[in-house]
Amino acid sequence: MIEDRPRATMDDVVALAKRRGFIFQSSEIYGGIGGFFDYGPLGAILKRNVKDAWWRETVELRDDVVAFDSSVIMHPSTWIASGHVAQFHDKLVDCKVCKHRFRADHLASLEKCPDCGSAHSFTEPRDFNLMMQTAIGPMEDSASRAYLRPETAQGIFVNFKNVYQTARKRPPFGIAQIGKSFRNEITPGNFTFRMREFEQAELEYFVPDDGNDMNVYEAWVTARKRWYSTYGVREERLRFYELTPQERPHYAKAGTDVEYLFPWGWGELESIAHRGTYDLDAHMKLSGKDLAFFDEATKTRYTPILIESSAGMDRTTLTMLVDAYETETIEDAESGKSSTRTVLRFHPKIAPVQVGVFPLARNKPELVERARSIERALRPYARTTYDEGNVGQLYRRQDEIGTPFCVMVDYDTLADGTVTVRERDSMRQERVAADGLRAYFVDRL
Amino acid sequence: MIEDRPRATMDDVVALAKRRGFIFQSSEIYGGIGGFFDYGPLGAILKRNVKDAWWRETVELRDDVVAFDSSVIMHPSTWIASGHVAQFHDKLVDCKVCKHRFRADHLASLEKCPDCGSAHSFTEPRDFNLMMQTAIGPMEDSASRAYLRPETAQGIFVNFKNVYQTARKRPPFGIAQIGKSFRNEITPGNFTFRMREFEQAELEYFVPDDGNDMNVYEAWVTARKRWYSTYGVREERLRFYELTPQERPHYAKAGTDVEYLFPWGWGELESIAHRGTYDLDAHMKLSGKDLAFFDEATKTRYTPILIESSAGMDRTTLTMLVDAYETETIEDAESGKSSTRTVLRFHPKIAPVQVGVFPLARNKPELVERARSIERALRPYARTTYDEGNVGQLYRRQDEIGTPFCVMVDYDTLADGTVTVRERDSMRQERVAADGLRAYFVDRL
Repeated sequence: MIEDRPRATMDDVVALAKRRGFIFQSSEIYGGIGGFFDYGPLGAILKRNVKDAWWRETVELRDDVVAFDSSVIMHPSTWIASGHVAQFHDKLVDCKVCKHRFRADHLASLEKCPDCGSAHSFTEPRDFNLMMQTAIGPMEDSASRAYLRPETAQGIFVNFKNVYQTARKRPPFGIAQIGKSFRNEITPGNFTFRMREFEQAELEYFVPDDGNDMNVYEAWVTARKRWYSTYGVREERLRFYELTPQERPHYAKAGTDVEYLFPWGWGELESIAHRGTYDLDAHMKLSGKDLAFFDEATKTRYTPILIESSAGMDRTTLTMLVDAYETETIEDAESGKSSTRTVLRFHPKIAPVQVGVFPLARNKPELVERARSIERALRPYARTTYDEGNVGQLYRRQDEIGTPFCVMVDYDTLADGTVTVRERDSMRQERVAADGLRAYFVDRL
Repeated sequence: MIEDRPRATMDDVVALAKRRGFIFQSSEIYGGIGGFFDYGPLGAILKRNVKDAWWRETVELRDDVVAFDSSVIMHPSTWIASGHVAQFHDKLVDCKVCKHRFRADHLASLEKCPDCGSAHSFTEPRDFNLMMQTAIGPMEDSASRAYLRPETAQGIFVNFKNVYQTARKRPPFGIAQIGKSFRNEITPGNFTFRMREFEQAELEYFVPDDGNDMNVYEAWVTARKRWYSTYGVREERLRFYELTPQERPHYAKAGTDVEYLFPWGWGELESIAHRGTYDLDAHMKLSGKDLAFFDEATKTRYTPILIESSAGMDRTTLTMLVDAYETETIEDAESGKSSTRTVLRFHPKIAPVQVGVFPLARNKPELVERARSIERALRPYARTTYDEGNVGQLYRRQDEIGTPFCVMVDYDTLADGTVTVRERDSMRQERVAADGLRAYFVDRL
């Protein structure tokens, strides 16, 4: 057994995501569009926090990684060099009778169409490229064809020389970016797990060929393990699967898939790979431009080895939501009655709202005013919200959106300046001086 | 005269942007692709700071604006309702002789082709839609057609009901998002000013029809003025141009364009508009879904009025770069010799690097070690960099990337624990205790 209580189903998570404004189907009023989702008020902040946490640890706190932000649409030759034009395919078959189209590898058999039942009605499998195409410029001809990037990494590779020269960096160093990518998935699904538009955080770390490359690779695997653990993803639902030589591309010396145990099974969040010099070589070959590193000190020239970490930010956001979700039975201390509560146990740095502030009674202007003023004073230092209403409902609501702390302003507050702070997970309450709240939360958030 | 020194040309700014790694042409090794640019290590941080500053003031510090993040690709009916399918056009003409294509409104005359000189050779002007198209799903037919959004706002409008219900908000309140948009501009140009892929920050603020709408509109104009001023954009190069009734769309009650005086002239950064109920009405009409606000308290139903602020984040980033750029003559106090320096006078919150830390001599391990350790200690609290080399060159380099403060570690540091802090604009230096640097910079950054 992985755990001792029943897990939430995806239906539970999807329903809460909709009800509380985390995630909506895109363009819902027009019937939606398959594979596209919108982040609502809480979801947009949740995803922003996930991205900021990645950026903080991968770029800001390190002195060996620089930032980058390349365009979604690049010169189409980029995707010839990368192999995406020739190889980024699914095999599709058409039923000649009902005209329906299927992914060949999703069919149990190619003998009989599952939709209309016709036998031997399929066309030969044909390649279907997953890159979305568009046209650039005033003419719609083949010269104007462009692709929406299916990954952000290539924007870094083609700029490698620009970056190391202007940032005055020498390997080992990394280049990181977060941005949207697009893939025309045949079968999007599992909520925001497999979308057609998604966001990636990619780190491309370049090292000299000095025999230390596998140590750097291992260090990044360790750093990424630490990241998930720092932000509270349960260890028992996370696995770092080391690819066998057969599972890796021919040029890759090592690879690890980071997977999370979703309600439907293990799903890939991230891939960490030792890619050798494959990517820079491919762009040098097609462009005829030099992307090797020239070391001014030693006057030597070499193509650095690449260690890559490529993480899905939507998938990581979904992981935070699924992993945090719990339903538990709680007992009221006074009445002894038991009830259930849904609680999202977000890490405080990830939680969309960190502190909820309420007056004990909404019809007492002096309590309302005091609560509002406490919320305003905390706002520059924490993600806060003000709310009012029935006390039990207020706590229930904040539990359900994962707010780690609630502050209740009551009549004692008016008398002695203290408030009740209630912690989400333990539901423990303590009295804290209102004017000490900022320091109290700085330590805890 | 707007100012008393000669201004930088765009060539100066573009050259510095390339040389120091702010902005590169996209896919340069393949010859580039018109209308697309990449942000290098410093540019990516600069743009991130601009976006964060907008987000901080527009969302985080306010309790009446919630976050949103909608997909680039939406249901195509969105763009029928918004009017973009029918009206988002440029008029183009083709020369029947040389086959070249032109924007009709860019030609001095329709009599004679400027490229081949033929007379009366143009076709009738035809509409050219500026939205980029793609296809979604496994079939490439008209049913699979989709558009890359030309603006982020529509993602907010179609979700208005989802948002107000789940976030439990009632007008007046706003919904904000930052994200990529795409327009197939016929003539991209002026560096990153007119691109085909760009990022917008949009605030949609919904108000009841209670006679207070023009005050809210004015308050947003004031808030946006304050934003530019807070982050240091020179007032004399900024203008808030109020649109005349003839310049506004028929449904708009008021509109203000925020413009900056670039080296080539005034360019629009942002538009602030009172759009009435036009947008929600259009989506209600086409979708048949109710997007009106239902007030539970008063049991009344109404379509709120919209006040919009739509700002270009790439244009604002370019503004920061252009506005900060200065070349000045400085005199060496000892030698009396004068020289010129290029300095970017970024606001400290916007500057990609906030503090540079150097040892006085790179070949003294105790100075190097001390400087590195000071830089490491400051890194969690500021955007820092460590560098070493010739003192004059170190300062010159930081001036050119706009670093507001430099810290020099010298022999006195080893003796008494103080360092020299040099301020970028005044070039004044002062001795500060190294272990007081964190507090020193918290006050100044």
